[in-house]
Amino acid sequence: MVSAADRQAPSPERIFEALNAYQKTAALKAGVELNVFTAIGKGANSAADIAEQCQASERGIRILCDFLVVNGFLTKSAQRYDLAPDSAIFLSKQSPAYIGSAIGFLTLPELIDPFENLTAIVRNGGSLNGDATTIDPDSPKWVEFARSMAALQRMPAEGVAETLNASAGKKWKVLDIAAGHGMYGVTLAKHNPNAEIFAVDWPRVLDVAKENAQSAGVAARYHTLPGNAFEVEFGKDYDVVLLTGFLHHFDSKAIETLLRKIHPAVKPDGVVVTVEFVPNEDRVTPPTAAAFSIVMLGSTRAGDAYPFSEYDRMFRAAGFSSSELRRTPGPQSFIISKK
Amino acid sequence: MVSAADRQAPSPERIFEALNAYQKTAALKAGVELNVFTAIGKGANSAADIAEQCQASERGIRILCDFLVVNGFLTKSAQRYDLAPDSAIFLSKQSPAYIGSAIGFLTLPELIDPFENLTAIVRNGGSLNGDATTIDPDSPKWVEFARSMAALQRMPAEGVAETLNASAGKKWKVLDIAAGHGMYGVTLAKHNPNAEIFAVDWPRVLDVAKENAQSAGVAARYHTLPGNAFEVEFGKDYDVVLLTGFLHHFDSKAIETLLRKIHPAVKPDGVVVTVEFVPNEDRVTPPTAAAFSIVMLGSTRAGDAYPFSEYDRMFRAAGFSSSELRRTPGPQSFIISKK
Repeated sequence: MVSAADRQAPSPERIFEALNAYQKTAALKAGVELNVFTAIGKGANSAADIAEQCQASERGIRILCDFLVVNGFLTKSAQRYDLAPDSAIFLSKQSPAYIGSAIGFLTLPELIDPFENLTAIVRNGGSLNGDATTIDPDSPKWVEFARSMAALQRMPAEGVAETLNASAGKKWKVLDIAAGHGMYGVTLAKHNPNAEIFAVDWPRVLDVAKENAQSAGVAARYHTLPGNAFEVEFGKDYDVVLLTGFLHHFDSKAIETLLRKIHPAVKPDGVVVTVEFVPNEDRVTPPTAAAFSIVMLGSTRAGDAYPFSEYDRMFRAAGFSSSELRRTPGPQSFIISKK
Repeated sequence: MVSAADRQAPSPERIFEALNAYQKTAALKAGVELNVFTAIGKGANSAADIAEQCQASERGIRILCDFLVVNGFLTKSAQRYDLAPDSAIFLSKQSPAYIGSAIGFLTLPELIDPFENLTAIVRNGGSLNGDATTIDPDSPKWVEFARSMAALQRMPAEGVAETLNASAGKKWKVLDIAAGHGMYGVTLAKHNPNAEIFAVDWPRVLDVAKENAQSAGVAARYHTLPGNAFEVEFGKDYDVVLLTGFLHHFDSKAIETLLRKIHPAVKPDGVVVTVEFVPNEDRVTPPTAAAFSIVMLGSTRAGDAYPFSEYDRMFRAAGFSSSELRRTPGPQSFIISKK
């Protein structure tokens, strides 16, 4: 995005676009909720046909679809709409890679509402509610996260399984901290029939993870450790510890405390796999990882999108010998830390 | 944006970015409200210095500024922030072209809130409140519009003055319908000392326009016709009629009715100048003009961003002999219609 700025002549258009950017969120959400992408995937192409399939007005559908064309989610030719490649793969319910359910979490009022008062949050330096919802055992936010975000994490979970060569079938004891939907542990268990998974999270969240383990046929090797990751007894002799999308909620002191608690639970040749939004050291590239920082500003007291140097330092401070960053094709990176 | 979609390999990143796009609106608003751009323009460059100038937390400013870099509004080098060209010109209060005040209107809850339920609006085919606020004489929305949006309209208003060759100084009687801030009529009056302006709008809105006429030194030639544009007596013998950002609120039937009311008030060699978001006939390019349609879906019963063929047809139906489209460097176009 920075390079685009460099190319263009100064114009208020970028400012106008940013002040209207909230409409993009609303339009994609409406498109998913109304099944516009699925209807087009099934062959409805004119505004009239899509409107009929989606039980919506033709005017509303025509304007919504035109807006989705402007933003690259649909194409349009001779008054007929079609799915852009991203949308065919990720937004049509007929696709096995459908991730439209992510709107359930990503557009939760609990996540969006703080941004109505971002000015006050920037003054304050963090969420005006502190870490209330992050550490609340009964927060419905994390149950919604577990239900909505599994699909979006399918690709990185497969990436972790491949990185660790799960299909080699070694006898593994895996600790999945703040497992959420459980997709990371479940995916390792699917690829490695000799892996036993121990998942930590709040009880209601683990119910969702157990459902997913059941669906994947790995329930017999899926064990749960309900409770707060900072307090629950992990057990020991883990070959793999998963920390996926969890550390970003905390300040470095809390992260080091957690890593020190994890260290004795890891086997001498075990690894900790952290899946995170890791910007470069400049903290402004790559765009999606760098931008994630503002989500943590809005919803936590002191969470962040830490660059690799910070994670490396925290792991060393907690006793780990080395950490290695692995970039992925997606917005999240893997950090492999050795004991 | 469509071409960017064509270039990229399929990835959920675009979807993730759109679902988080509301953060871009919030960040730009916070940057303006906290005077971040003005502080950097005055020489504060580190997060600590900017935080001190803006009376905000360093963590909040660092994360906000990084996010503004990601989105092209700032640049960053060696932990020092600087203004991108757009921001230096349009977002620093030291610049005469400052348009930051536009956040007052563009982020009004009245405009943003409907998008929280865009799905229902698409089903319904228009605003769930009908045209209540568009035609309410006491709506504070239009007073805020008049106060906030004058700066953003400075460039197109100068463009109209140039297009009409206002500085030639012909004796002009100008009718400015739904004048709002009054910048279009005021700008013509500034360039043409022989122009008399007659501005139509709600009384409280005209108070703002009169203030602007006063500041520009043209108050003696600035006359007001308070009331509803569909009902008020325009008078006659106008050389120029201005319709700036007004027609998009209505359906074509209402627009034709208004144009028929205007026609007899125009001199035989007079012109009507319409300033509007006019997409191409495909209704999906250019992006900003095409995207404006969804704003009308959210806030009106039947307003739209009409392509030129539609305006041309409506003007002919109302008795005008010809209309000509003039593209501008900005998102709005001019339509010059002859009697």
